[in-house]
Order: sequence, then C-alpha cells, then structure tokens
Amino acid sequence: MADVITFGEVMIRLAPPHFQRLEQARSLDLEIGGAELNTAAGLVRLGRSAAWVSRVPDNPLGKLVTNRVREIGVSDQFVQYAADGRCGVYFLEFGAAPRASSIVYDREGSSIARARRGTFDWPTIVTGAKWLHVSGITPALSAGTAEAADEAMRAARSAGVRVCFDLNYRSKLWSQERAAEVLGRLLPLVDVLIASEADAEHLFGVTGDDFTAVAKGLVERFGVPTVVGTRREANLVWRNRFAAVGYSQGQTYESAWYEVEIVDRLGAGDALAAGLIHGLLDGDLKKGLDYGAAIGALKHSIPGDLPWLTKEEIEAAMQGQGLRIKR
Amino acid sequence: MADVITFGEVMIRLAPPHFQRLEQARSLDLEIGGAELNTAAGLVRLGRSAAWVSRVPDNPLGKLVTNRVREIGVSDQFVQYAADGRCGVYFLEFGAAPRASSIVYDREGSSIARARRGTFDWPTIVTGAKWLHVSGITPALSAGTAEAADEAMRAARSAGVRVCFDLNYRSKLWSQERAAEVLGRLLPLVDVLIASEADAEHLFGVTGDDFTAVAKGLVERFGVPTVVGTRREANLVWRNRFAAVGYSQGQTYESAWYEVEIVDRLGAGDALAAGLIHGLLDGDLKKGLDYGAAIGALKHSIPGDLPWLTKEEIEAAMQGQGLRIKR
Amino acid sequence: MADVITFGEVMIRLAPPHFQRLEQARSLDLEIGGAELNTAAGLVRLGRSAAWVSRVPDNPLGKLVTNRVREIGVSDQFVQYAADGRCGVYFLEFGAAPRASSIVYDREGSSIARARRGTFDWPTIVTGAKWLHVSGITPALSAGTAEAADEAMRAARSAGVRVCFDLNYRSKLWSQERAAEVLGRLLPLVDVLIASEADAEHLFGVTGDDFTAVAKGLVERFGVPTVVGTRREANLVWRNRFAAVGYSQGQTYESAWYEVEIVDRLGAGDALAAGLIHGLLDGDLKKGLDYGAAIGALKHSIPGDLPWLTKEEIEAAMQGQGLRIKR
Amino acid sequence: MADVITFGEVMIRLAPPHFQRLEQARSLDLEIGGAELNTAAGLVRLGRSAAWVSRVPDNPLGKLVTNRVREIGVSDQFVQYAADGRCGVYFLEFGAAPRASSIVYDREGSSIARARRGTFDWPTIVTGAKWLHVSGITPALSAGTAEAADEAMRAARSAGVRVCFDLNYRSKLWSQERAAEVLGRLLPLVDVLIASEADAEHLFGVTGDDFTAVAKGLVERFGVPTVVGTRREANLVWRNRFAAVGYSQGQTYESAWYEVEIVDRLGAGDALAAGLIHGLLDGDLKKGLDYGAAIGALKHSIPGDLPWLTKEEIEAAMQGQGLRIKR
Amino acid sequence: MADVITFGEVMIRLAPPHFQRLEQARSLDLEIGGAELNTAAGLVRLGRSAAWVSRVPDNPLGKLVTNRVREIGVSDQFVQYAADGRCGVYFLEFGAAPRASSIVYDREGSSIARARRGTFDWPTIVTGAKWLHVSGITPALSAGTAEAADEAMRAARSAGVRVCFDLNYRSKLWSQERAAEVLGRLLPLVDVLIASEADAEHLFGVTGDDFTAVAKGLVERFGVPTVVGTRREANLVWRNRFAAVGYSQGQTYESAWYEVEIVDRLGAGDALAAGLIHGLLDGDLKKGLDYGAAIGALKHSIPGDLPWLTKEEIEAAMQGQGLRIKR
Amino acid sequence: MADVITFGEVMIRLAPPHFQRLEQARSLDLEIGGAELNTAAGLVRLGRSAAWVSRVPDNPLGKLVTNRVREIGVSDQFVQYAADGRCGVYFLEFGAAPRASSIVYDREGSSIARARRGTFDWPTIVTGAKWLHVSGITPALSAGTAEAADEAMRAARSAGVRVCFDLNYRSKLWSQERAAEVLGRLLPLVDVLIASEADAEHLFGVTGDDFTAVAKGLVERFGVPTVVGTRREANLVWRNRFAAVGYSQGQTYESAWYEVEIVDRLGAGDALAAGLIHGLLDGDLKKGLDYGAAIGALKHSIPGDLPWLTKEEIEAAMQGQGLRIKR
Repeated sequence: MADVITFGEVMIRLAPPHFQRLEQARSLDLEIGGAELNTAAGLVRLGRSAAWVSRVPDNPLGKLVTNRVREIGVSDQFVQYAADGRCGVYFLEFGAAPRASSIVYDREGSSIARARRGTFDWPTIVTGAKWLHVSGITPALSAGTAEAADEAMRAARSAGVRVCFDLNYRSKLWSQERAAEVLGRLLPLVDVLIASEADAEHLFGVTGDDFTAVAKGLVERFGVPTVVGTRREANLVWRNRFAAVGYSQGQTYESAWYEVEIVDRLGAGDALAAGLIHGLLDGDLKKGLDYGAAIGALKHSIPGDLPWLTKEEIEAAMQGQGLRIKR
Repeated sequence: MADVITFGEVMIRLAPPHFQRLEQARSLDLEIGGAELNTAAGLVRLGRSAAWVSRVPDNPLGKLVTNRVREIGVSDQFVQYAADGRCGVYFLEFGAAPRASSIVYDREGSSIARARRGTFDWPTIVTGAKWLHVSGITPALSAGTAEAADEAMRAARSAGVRVCFDLNYRSKLWSQERAAEVLGRLLPLVDVLIASEADAEHLFGVTGDDFTAVAKGLVERFGVPTVVGTRREANLVWRNRFAAVGYSQGQTYESAWYEVEIVDRLGAGDALAAGLIHGLLDGDLKKGLDYGAAIGALKHSIPGDLPWLTKEEIEAAMQGQGLRIKR
Repeated sequence: MADVITFGEVMIRLAPPHFQRLEQARSLDLEIGGAELNTAAGLVRLGRSAAWVSRVPDNPLGKLVTNRVREIGVSDQFVQYAADGRCGVYFLEFGAAPRASSIVYDREGSSIARARRGTFDWPTIVTGAKWLHVSGITPALSAGTAEAADEAMRAARSAGVRVCFDLNYRSKLWSQERAAEVLGRLLPLVDVLIASEADAEHLFGVTGDDFTAVAKGLVERFGVPTVVGTRREANLVWRNRFAAVGYSQGQTYESAWYEVEIVDRLGAGDALAAGLIHGLLDGDLKKGLDYGAAIGALKHSIPGDLPWLTKEEIEAAMQGQGLRIKR
Repeated sequence: MADVITFGEVMIRLAPPHFQRLEQARSLDLEIGGAELNTAAGLVRLGRSAAWVSRVPDNPLGKLVTNRVREIGVSDQFVQYAADGRCGVYFLEFGAAPRASSIVYDREGSSIARARRGTFDWPTIVTGAKWLHVSGITPALSAGTAEAADEAMRAARSAGVRVCFDLNYRSKLWSQERAAEVLGRLLPLVDVLIASEADAEHLFGVTGDDFTAVAKGLVERFGVPTVVGTRREANLVWRNRFAAVGYSQGQTYESAWYEVEIVDRLGAGDALAAGLIHGLLDGDLKKGLDYGAAIGALKHSIPGDLPWLTKEEIEAAMQGQGLRIKR
Repeated sequence: MADVITFGEVMIRLAPPHFQRLEQARSLDLEIGGAELNTAAGLVRLGRSAAWVSRVPDNPLGKLVTNRVREIGVSDQFVQYAADGRCGVYFLEFGAAPRASSIVYDREGSSIARARRGTFDWPTIVTGAKWLHVSGITPALSAGTAEAADEAMRAARSAGVRVCFDLNYRSKLWSQERAAEVLGRLLPLVDVLIASEADAEHLFGVTGDDFTAVAKGLVERFGVPTVVGTRREANLVWRNRFAAVGYSQGQTYESAWYEVEIVDRLGAGDALAAGLIHGLLDGDLKKGLDYGAAIGALKHSIPGDLPWLTKEEIEAAMQGQGLRIKR
Repeated sequence: MADVITFGEVMIRLAPPHFQRLEQARSLDLEIGGAELNTAAGLVRLGRSAAWVSRVPDNPLGKLVTNRVREIGVSDQFVQYAADGRCGVYFLEFGAAPRASSIVYDREGSSIARARRGTFDWPTIVTGAKWLHVSGITPALSAGTAEAADEAMRAARSAGVRVCFDLNYRSKLWSQERAAEVLGRLLPLVDVLIASEADAEHLFGVTGDDFTAVAKGLVERFGVPTVVGTRREANLVWRNRFAAVGYSQGQTYESAWYEVEIVDRLGAGDALAAGLIHGLLDGDLKKGLDYGAAIGALKHSIPGDLPWLTKEEIEAAMQGQGLRIKR
C-alpha cells in the first residue's frame, strides 16, 4: 500500500558516451526512463512510498526494468509480465550548443501499449493510496492505454484518491487533434495539472500573457483546481536556470530559481512532479513547488532519468547551502 | 558492379560486456550483424567485391548500419533508406559452460521486413555479378521478403548469376511448416545449398547416417547440385573444433579441422559461406571448403559478427602456420 | 513474510578489470557480495521469497548495498541503517594458472560487526519463514554477531523454522580454536550443515576416508541430521568440474557433475546452498543437491557474487541442454 | 567521380579520456584526423560527393584509416597503400582553462610524406570534379608533397577545376621562411584562400586594421580572388563564439555568430571549409560562409575530427532552431 | 636527500565516473590522494626534490600507494610498510550546480593513524632538507600522529629546516575544541602558515575585515611570520576564479586571478602550497604566491589529486599565454 | 647503486581491448614494454635493486615511460631525456587459436636508436653493480646502439660486473647476417647467454638433437660459460606449458613445468631472465632456473609486459601451492 501510484511506460534508454553521435557509437550506456517511474522514484527519495504500474515483456529486458525499479525503491508489485509486446527503446544523444540533445524513439509495439481497459485491477491498486500520477504520454501510447488511463483516474476518484496529471504532449506519438480530444476528456478528472504554456496553446488554444493567465484559462476550461508549470531559461545546453510555478484559487506561487550545470536534463520535469506531490501530500502547494524546483534542479546533475538524491540534499539545496565539499 | 550480391537484414547488436547477463547490464557494446552482410564482408576480405542489398530506416540507426557496411568495404549502393519501419535489434549474452550464449531478438517491424516484390530493381542489381547469396533468414522475415528473395533469385538465374543459399532455419521467426513450404519453393533455384543435417531433417524430413547421405537426399529432393555443411565439435563454450564439408556430383570433400578458442562465434558460419563462394568464384568447391573452414575458424577469434581478417592471415591458417608472434 | 530468512554481512567488492593486479589498478568494478545474501538471491531466482537481515551504515555505501539487494529481488525490510560502523570492503584479483585469484579483506569495524544479542527482533523476523540460513562467517565477525547468530537460530527453532548452516571457516577472521568453540555451540541448533571435509578436520578433528565417513562423523558429533558438501576438481583457474553431495539418514546422494568455464567463481557455493534449500523447502534433499549443483555450476559463468539466473535456465542445465544459441 | 577532391595526410589521433594528461594515460581513444579529409567528410554530410587522395602504409593502421574514410562516406578510391613509410600519429590532450588543449605530433616518415611529383595521376583524379581542396599542411610535409600539391593544383586549373586552399601554417612542420616561399608559389593557383590574419602577417607581412584590410592585401599580393577567415572569441576552453567572414570583389560578408559549448574543437576550421565549398559549388560565397559557420560551430560538439552531422541539422542551426529536445 | 619533506596520510580515492552518484556506481576510478603528497608532487613538477613520509599497510593497497608516489617522482624512501592498520579510502562524487561534489571518508584505523612519537627517525629524515610541510590533517588523524607531527616539526627546527603548515581543519576528523588545542600548540613552530579566514575564526576566534586583518591576528597570536590564503570565487561547480594571497612583515601580496574550468578541484590548495614553497625555497614569498596561484589554478584541469604539470606549463600560465593549441 | 643494470629500449605499447583487431579499434590500452626493463622490473619484484639505462624523448611520452619505470620500482637515474628522436610505439593484437597474437612495430627514429658509443658514462653506471643485462634487441636498433652495447659490456667486464645476454633475434629489425656478425662479436663478452635453439641455428648454424647439444655448441663456439633456454609447449593461444632449462659446465638443469592460462604472454621470457639473474646473484644457476620458470609462468597471468608479482607469490608457485583463494 503506497502513498502514490503512478502509471506509465518505461523504456530502455541507450546513449552513446561522451557526446558521441549515434552514428559513431561503439557502445551505449543503458539506463531506464519513463516519466511516471521517474516521479515515483522522486517520491521515494523524499521519503514517500510509491508503486509504479505497468506492463513489461516477460524477458530479460522486462526483468532489467523491474530490477531497476526495485533498486531505486519503487514497488513493482503491480507490474505485469506479458507474453506479448516488447520493451520500448530510446536512443539519446547528448548535445552541446548549438547542437541540441536529441532522441530516436523506438517504442512501437510495446507490452504496455497493448494494455487496455481491464488489464489492471485499478480499484485494488489505488486502495490506500493518496495520489495517482499519470502523464499525457500514457494515453498517447495507444487507444488501449488511453482507456486504461481513464479507468485508472476514475477508479482513483471513486476511491478518494487525488489525481495529478502532467500534460506532456509528445508530437512524435500523436497528433495535436487526437491529443486534444483524448486529453480533453481526461482533464476534468484531474486535481492538479502540470502543463507548459506551449502545450496549453497548441492543444487547447488556451493562451495568455503569462503563466497566470494561461493557468486561469486551463482552470476555466477544464475545471482543474490547480495548474503547475516548469520555468526554464536556456540559451546553452550545459547551463540553464530552473524554477517551478503554480496557480491555485486565484493565486500564483513561484519557487526560488536555481542555476543548473547540466549533466543530464532528462527526468527533471518528472522529478519536479515528485516534489510537487510531496508537498501536496501535506496539502501545501507552495511546499510542493519549493521541493519540486529543488529536486528538479538537482536532477540535472545526475546521469540517467532517475533522481538519485536524498531528502537531506534536496532540503539543503532549498536552504541555499553552497557548493563546498564537506570535509 | 560487384562480384557477389547478398541480400538480407542487418540488426543492431547490443551485448553486455564481460559475460554479464542482460539483466545486470549498465552498458552495451554495439556491433552490427546480419548473415548476408557477414558473408559479403568475408568476400571483400578475400579480395572480391561485394554489394549488400537491404532496406534500413532513414534515421541515425540506419546510417550507423551503412556507415559500418562501407567501413568493412562492402558496397551500400543498393541499400534503400526507408521512411517506414525500424532497425531491428538483438541483445546478445555471452555464456560460459554450462551456460550457453543467448540472444533476445527484437526485430519485428523492421524496414527490410516491409520490402516486397518490386521494392528492389533486381535485374539491374545483379547485372555483372557472378553469385547471389541469400540465407533462409531473409524469406523468414515476412511474406514480402519471401517474395523479394524469390524475385532476386529468379533475376539472378535469368542473368546467369549463380545462387548460393544458406538454409539457416530460425525457429523464432517462423514455424517449421511455413519454412518448409517457402524454402521448398526457393531451393530449386539454388546452385549451392548450405544446410545443417538438423535443418534438413526438421524442415524436409531428409535424414541419413552421415553428411553425405543427407546431402544426397537434398540433392535428390530439390535438384540442388551442391550441398555444404559446417562441422563443429563443442562441449564447451570457449573452445570448439571446426571444419567444412561439401558434397557435389557424388563426391564428399572435407576441409582440415581447426581448434578454435572462441571470442565470438557469431558470424562464423557466414564467414564460411564467404570462403566457400570465394572458391566457387574460381569454380573450385574444395578450395571453397578450405577457405571457408579457415575464415570461419578464424572468425571465432574476432569480436562482432564481421570477419576482420586479411587474405594473408586466412591463407597462413590454411598452411598451418603456428601461433607464435612474429617479431 | 519470506520463505527463507538469511543473516550475514555484505561487503562492497572492488575488482580490477581484466586480470589486473590491484597494484596496477586505475579503476575497479564494483559489486556487492555476502554469502547469505548470495543464497537469498539464489532462492529468489528459483521462485522463492527471501529476506536478508543485516546492518549497514546510513550512508551512500549502505544505500548502495540495499539498492542492489532489492534489485535482485531480495527483501531488505529487516536491514537496519546504523549511525555507527562502516561498510566492509574487499578487493578481488582474478587469477590465471598458476596464479590463484586472491582477496584483500578490509572489513573491520563494520556496522554489522557491531550487532549483538537484541539488535534484531528475531521472533518477528522469523515468523512465517520456513528456513533460516546462516554461514560460519556471521559468528566470526565479532562476539556480538556470534551472539546474534545464536539468538537467531534459537528463535528459529522456537518458531518451528528449520536451520541451514554453512560452516565456511575463514581463517582470516578467527582462529581455529575460537571457531571450533563458537561453531561447536551453534551446530546442535542446525538441521542441515554444509561443510567441507577440510573444515571438518581442521575445526573438529572429524576425518574419514570419504565424504560419507566425514559426514557420519559430523552427524554423530553434533546431532546434525543432514550434511552437504561441494565437490570441485580444479587444476586450472578458468576451468573446473563441479558437483554437490549430501548425506542424510545413512544414505549418500550425489548430483550430476558439471564442466564449468569460469568467469567468476565467487558465490558458487552460496548458490549451491540456495539450490539445496529450494529442494529442502519441498522436503527433498536429492532435489536440493540437483538444483544446488546446477545453480552453483551456472553461477561460475556470471560476473559478481550474485546468481543472475532464471529457474528455466537452471532446469535446462539439469536436463543437460546443450550449448547452442537458440535462434 | 566526385564533386570535390581533397589531398592531404591523415594521422591516427590518440587522446587520453576525460582531460587526463598524456603522462597519466592508461588508455587512449583512437580517432583519425586530417584537415583535408575533414573537409571532404563535411562535404559528404552536406550531400556532395568527395574523394580524398593520400598514401597510407599497407598495414593495419593504413587500413584502419581507409576503413574510417569509407565509414563517413568519403571515397578512398585514389588512396594508395604503400610499402614504405608509416602512419603518422598525434597525441591529443584536452584542456580546461587555464590549461590549453595540446598536441604531441609524431608524424615524421609517413607514407604520404614520401609522395612526390608523379606519385598520383592527377589529371585522371580531377576529371569531373568541380573543386580541389588542399591545405598548407600538405606542402609542409616534405619537399615531395610540396611538389605533389603544386602538380595537383596545376592539373586542376588545366581541367577547369577550381582550387580552394586553406593556408593553415604549422610552425612545428616548417619555418616561416620556407613556408612563405613554398606557399607563395602556390597561391597564384588558388581561387579561394582561407587564411588567418596572423598567418597573413607572419608569413607574408600582410597586415591591416581588420579582416577586410588583410584580405585586400592578400588579393593584391597573390591575385587570389576571394579570401575567407574564421572568427573565434575564446577566453575559455569549453566555450567560444564562432563565425565565418569572407571578402571577394571589394565586398566583405560575415555569417551569424554562434555560441559554442566545446566537446572537441579539432576539425572546426576544416568543417567550415566544407560549408564554404558547399556554397561555392553553387557559386554563392555568402551561402558558403553561412553553411561554413554553422557546420563549423556544430562540429565543436562532436568528439573526433570528423563532422558527424546531417544537412538537416546544419540548416536547422542556420535557422536558429533552439536547444530543446524534440519529442 | 630531498629539498622538501612532507608528512601525512594518503588514501585510496574511489570515484564513480561521469557525475554518477555513489549509489548508482558499477565501477570506480581509482586515484590516490593526500594533502602532503600532493604538495610534494607539485614541488617535484616544479623541479625540486621531495620525499613524502608516511606509513602504509604491507599489502597490495600499500604498494599501490607507493607505486604511484614514485610514479610522480616523489621519494618513498621514508615510507614504512606496516603489519598493522589499513589503507584509508575515500569515496568521491563529482557534482554540478546546485549539487556540490561530496566525499564519504572511510579512513579510521589506518596504518598512519597508528604512528606516534618515535615511529619515524625525524632527525635523519630532515637532514639536508630545506623545508618541512605538514597539514592540519596529520595531527587530526590520532593522538599519535599529533605527537609525531610535533616531533617532526621540532626536529626540523632543530636542524634549521623551515616549517610550512597548512591549517586545513577537517570537521569530520576532530572537534573545533580539540583542533584548536592541538594546532595551537603546533603553530608556534611554524614559519609559514596557510589558513582560511573561516578556519581562523572557527578555531581561534581570529576575525577581521579582510585577509590582511585576519593574517595580522594570526601573526600576533601565534608568532607565525607569514600567513598565506587561497582566494576562490565560486557560484558554480564547473567554473571558479582562483588566486593566492599572502601576508608577511606588514605587507600583503596577491597573485593574479585565474578563470578556471574545473575537471577536478581536489588538490588545488595543496598544489598552491607547492608553488608557495617553490618560491620560499628562493626566499621569495611573492614568487611563491605567483607560482602557487598558477599551479593551483592549473590543477583544476587535471583528474586526480596530483598536479600532473610541467614547470613550463606553469610558467606559461603565469605569463598569460592563451588557450590556443600549439601546432 | 643497483644490483643489476639493464640497457635497452622501451616502447609505448598500444593494444585494442578484448581481442579486437587493430582495424576495428576505437580505443587502445596503453602499457610500456621493453625486454631489458621487464627484466629489471622482475628483479625488483624479487627484492633486488635494478636500474634501467636508456634514452627517451623529452616530451610527455618520454615522461610517461620514466613515470612507469619508477612506478614499478626500477631506478631511472641513468635515463637521458633527449631533444632528438621519438618514442617507439608498438601495436599489439591479442589472438585466439587459430589466430596468433600479432604486433605492428613503429619504432624507427627513436631517441634510443640515436645513442652511440659515448652517449652513456658506462664506467660510472656499472660501478657497484653485480650484473649487466642486455638483450639482442639493443644492438639491433642501430649501429650506434650496437656500439653502445659493446661499450657497456666491456665496461662491465672491466669493472668485474658479470654480463647476462638474451639473444632475442628480431627479424623485423635486422637481417640474420648482420645479426650474426654483430652478436658474434658481443658473445665472447657474455657470462650467461639466453638463447633459443631456433636462434642458435638460424644465426650461427649451431644445431643439435636437444637443448644440451645446442648449448654445448654455443659454449664451444663463443666461450660462453652458461646457456639458458625457455621451454614452451603451445598448441593454443590461451594455454601453454612453460619451463626453463640451463646448461653449465657439462651439466643440464631443468625447472619444474607450469601449466599456464594466458592473459598476456609478452614479457614472460624477460621475467624468466629476472628469475635467472636472481639466482645467479646468489651464484646458483639451478635456483635461477627455478625462480625464472616460476616468475615467467606467473607473468602470463598479468596484463602488460611487466611482472607485477611479489616474491612471496613466486615462491608459493615454486612450492606448488594450489589455486584456491585464501580466505
């Protein structure tokens, strides 16, 4: 019985070392990555319990995934080993200005994409949990996962479990029209929505002069009580500025800004979601933004998608502790 | 205009280093591997020209494949870059007795599997070539590639190009029944057939007390003039004995046997096919077996599927040159 | 609630790559290793549930250990994070004939060595378990762990949990006299004893012409119902022969022998113990020896101390399945 | 028949990983590097065909070089395998402010340095090409290569092939006096000259207040119609600003400036030359500067001397596409 | 007979590659590090002779340490191989803003910590030397090493050897009270003291508006003639500004400031001490600060604790030579 | 003042990892290797002092060499840093049956090859030494080194220092005729000659039915009192049998034979020479053969040319201690 349930795909992530192009590669570093797992992991690092729900192939790659899920402390008790489907893979190239990092996805036909309504016993899974977290990637995987996400969110609401949803529009997975339609049906089930201003505009035509205006637009349109966003200033690949912002009940909150030197920015937004839910578990949005910005900022310094951090480190960053080595 | 045309799939090969299990892996060595490319490469190493025909996705993985095809000296002029399909992947674990090496294939939906009759301009491709080489893996990929293989072999025969076919039954790709049916239709187009006794029995029910008996059975059944086999004695993973055997016009020929210490046995059979065709290009089956056994034996000592060898080294092995370092 | 509880130390294992001497090393491969964890891991791979009981420092190294414990599927719920003590380390050099592999231990002052009677709540821990497994290394760590081992075994007996004990005398940890005294007090609490003939002689003066004679001597001396041993023929470092043997109620059983090519022999005996307990959980010593020999033999092929194997692979080895790659 | 012919040396490049000093090194990363090959490779990446002319030893190192030449898509058909001479090597240390990167050259006695007038059949080689590209390194290698460069450039002019020449003075190869003399004889054969203001001054005493003034001086002195330069602002090792500038027929053109985070700056100037010739092939100097600056800037992000980029990426950089990962 | 004698501990330093957290690590890079050895090494690189005095275990780790001491050119003639104690280890994680680099020490029970008065024959050791260098880490290791440091410094003074002492308070080794007491007894034996303003305040309550004021306070309090400090501006992990400052006989001297891109900042302060002593050997504090700042700044660019630099490079940096590669 | 002086070249050794061909290589492992240094290192490991005399370029590669010379404990006090010449390099490929390991030498123009009579102050260098060791590689490098070797050996004889000479004919360095002539002039200066039967025959036409007969022939021909040989049985690359044999004053001695599993056979003969001289230092040829065979056999298990072993390990092997890990 975990505090938080998350639901989504995990892929094998393969990246050439030291800024090599994929074309040059002779070896690849292997990590696993998936938005909802990353968030679950962040919650565990913050002292919460979390279970990740998914479906992986019953082969060494599927086991590799669950091995690592357990390694970081997330429960894999609801993960199904499937006879059908494969484990999605993505190939990641790290960039340097003026070359952006880039990804080649190879995720079609995955075991999780073959999930559908009824694949998971959601009423049992959400029992005892306080929050359910899903991202917009999950319903994008297939019609089946869109159904399953809907089923999960409805089961959550029935059980009094709150729902956090990260919009996370992925243009490589589905069209804006299809996304707008599917996500538009899910959003009324959501308690806290994480969304970028760009996605708000492109999917729903919700625009505004600033985050607050856009957030208000989303609140009005979908009845979502709370909207959260990531703020990033980036004119280089190896150095950004990073913060979190949230809107709820007429008020906008912003976290401190962090200077980040970037080892690996993947999973930073998912870590932010973890910090956010950590605050929400205490009913405190501002706390969520503060933890979210800190864990998200710190995540940039860690190779792989997962936030290998301790609560102490996160809180030290929030207190502005410096960059000296403790001796 | 190459001496030999080969046709088939190449996959990205990913292997954990140093005998790790895939479940343990944190990095993977990347090679490319495909039976027909391996054979083309062996021919180039023996001084022949060879072109490999295939279809790869128009993305960094597809380019990685053709980069490496060119690197070893095989022509990629007939390779198509496709907007559809992916690049197949296989995950290889190296074993040690009593654990066999093992492979997890992830090759569905590849660009080459979407080839069909008409995808390639075979009459042009085979113009000027002397041999066409295909393995039983190619028609196993899809109904389309089975058609394309048929089309290629017929184009070859029309153009006076001889056909070498390596039976290479892969149970993970198709059933024995389907394989027997499709391959049974192709074999009458074949000049030289490479086949194991096990495949002869399981696919076609052709059995016999020894290689010669089985070869005779295949000759009778399919009208193939010549049958070639690999001989391997293996009760360990790191050490085998290896040779080649052939039957043609009532006579059986056997190469010398080689003691092999095994770095990587993948591609040894394909290298043998290269040596075989090298001899056949001179109209000399015995020469083909001798070169085939030598290059096949030597291939075991080289990481990756490709036979990075020189003609001088192959001939030195044939002359029984020893294992001293030359200084 | 796990089928099997094991109790002992885990150390960080650091080994130079590719047969380097420690003196030459510029990098070290990091694994974790501990006899009782290895056995718990083997049981999990065979489909049983297992929990490992220990005490690690509350720092990144302690967390690294429990991360990996969870990764392989063993429960870490009874592991304590201690403010005192360190995480033991051992440095491993891989050898080649005529140079044996060798180990430099640096394990003094570990958190687990500071455990004592009362550190763990044994009655709770063993509740619901069927077997408790401890090795002779645990009582060798300190007077405190000797007490804790005694406490654990008595709690097990009180709760009807059977006790398996691997004698595992370590001359670098304690003298023969001290070991004989402490172990001699523990053995009457044991249901199944794993012991080498050398240890039987050096610690207890129990000798005999063969395994059966020695086993009988141990049975008589300590009232242990069952004695099990490893059989290894080894005149090279990279190749051995390996089997298991057991004696119970007047009868001696021996497993099949395996030819093993050796990637990493550490943990082979612990894997054997896992296979043994797997059989004992079904009340079948012969089955335990058969699984023990197979998983122990297979372990030699895997880097690290842990037996990353599947039940299917273990059973395939028992059925003498060959060394061909399945395709 | 390639669009562009380039002529020069390639060396094996050996670099300790991760900013190590050579003195510390226990392993070296192996790349190949040579100014004219780098330029040929850039042209291929931009969709042009290119052949590289050189002379390498007939041993595994020479083959390694041509393997990699083919890998990136440059034709090696005019490369000669020589019985005499060796393959030059250079050892590269990557720096960090205030330590500059540094190179130890070991290139004496190379096979290419033994080339002379008559070694290559230039009239045949340049047939059908549109541009010949040589750098000032080639004539610096030996008196023979100075002759061969002269021969090549004259053959080009006779065949109506335009000549691009990158001055590239290397003080470790020859004195300023000797360079001025030899290069001074070659420059009248040049259509487009790439030159730094420092080289213009030190070799030819051509000075001026800015690039335009210096370019004018070179035009006057040598009758070169067009002069191109690289612009770099650099007070750190890991971050620079980069652009291209050109002068022709009284007019000065400058590309956009790029912020570059530097993985490996070697070959950036050679990549710029590729972009330049790409524009010149369309008769458009401004286009050449724009492509040159973009491919040169992007090259800084790629390990090795070769510009592993796609035309799409280069054009995206030119359009100021940002640093977000496309998903 | 060395110019400079240094006395202290060396530990095995183990660091996960590429910014990994220790929890994630599968391999560790191995270096050695110890403040006083680092300083001795810097002196050797500057052309001085230096011997490092210590006590290491008589096992492969102890030998690894002395191997590397000799490798960099420092004399190990006074190092003792001990039957007791271990080799300390520290685990280093490299950070990126906002995550600081961090260290887990595991140094208790080391062979050097068991040294005491009488362990080393100081009068012999210091004979012929000109300076003795010790840091505040050495007396922090144990009561015995505090005695030994006192003994060494008194022997130096008796022999007319000057004493340089780097305060280097390590809060993980001892309390401020204990440090203040022990160090307070040693400081009157010191000719040149390296101290941070923070240590001056926390240990001795010596404060002031700027370095000069604090230095004056230390001079007054302990009679130390000269005080030296490091100046570092650091709001990022990968980039700092760095300089040296010194006070003697009423005058304050400051070196040039250096922009540093940081590969590995460990040992920068110890390198500074080497540059300082290099100047002091010529009786020139300003020269010492200039060399100290330059070698300290350059050290940041080199992996490991040791300053693998040449005198030429250090002097080039002092002359503001730029960041171009020399070709 | 060292017990033994050795004189020769050291090269940078570059080898692709894991049995790769050089053509495939993307990184190379860097070791240093040179016959006479290897022997000096073996002597140091056996507790003797040794100095290696040579001439290296005054650049980072030369320093790398002397760094490592000191690292293993050999004195570099007589090594000269030269402004002229380069550091030789050799590229090593590790083989597996039926592919032998192979080497590409690139050693022309080395600094040591430019040594000549008068380069080294031999009377000073040999003062106090007991043995001088040179191999037949040194005079093969150039006419100058042949003179220098002659000069060294004569200085040794004058000073009462005994001379050990390892014939070591290298066909890639000189012709048999030239070698016979030069070596024939040196051999009368030799006290102990190490020679293979093949070299005896090819260089001097000395043949015989067995080692004793050949040794007698050499004794008669050159007046060398003692002749020593290596015995190796090798029909695989990864496994050999190895022993030492010697003849002196009418008597033939043979060491025990060792089964060797081979990690790296380079330097095994040089290690044997070290063991031999270790015995000769005690005036005991049989002891020398016994130590020589043991250290030579053990060397096969260690990567690199240098014998990283301890005297204890060598003596344990001589006593037939087994292959168990000590725990």
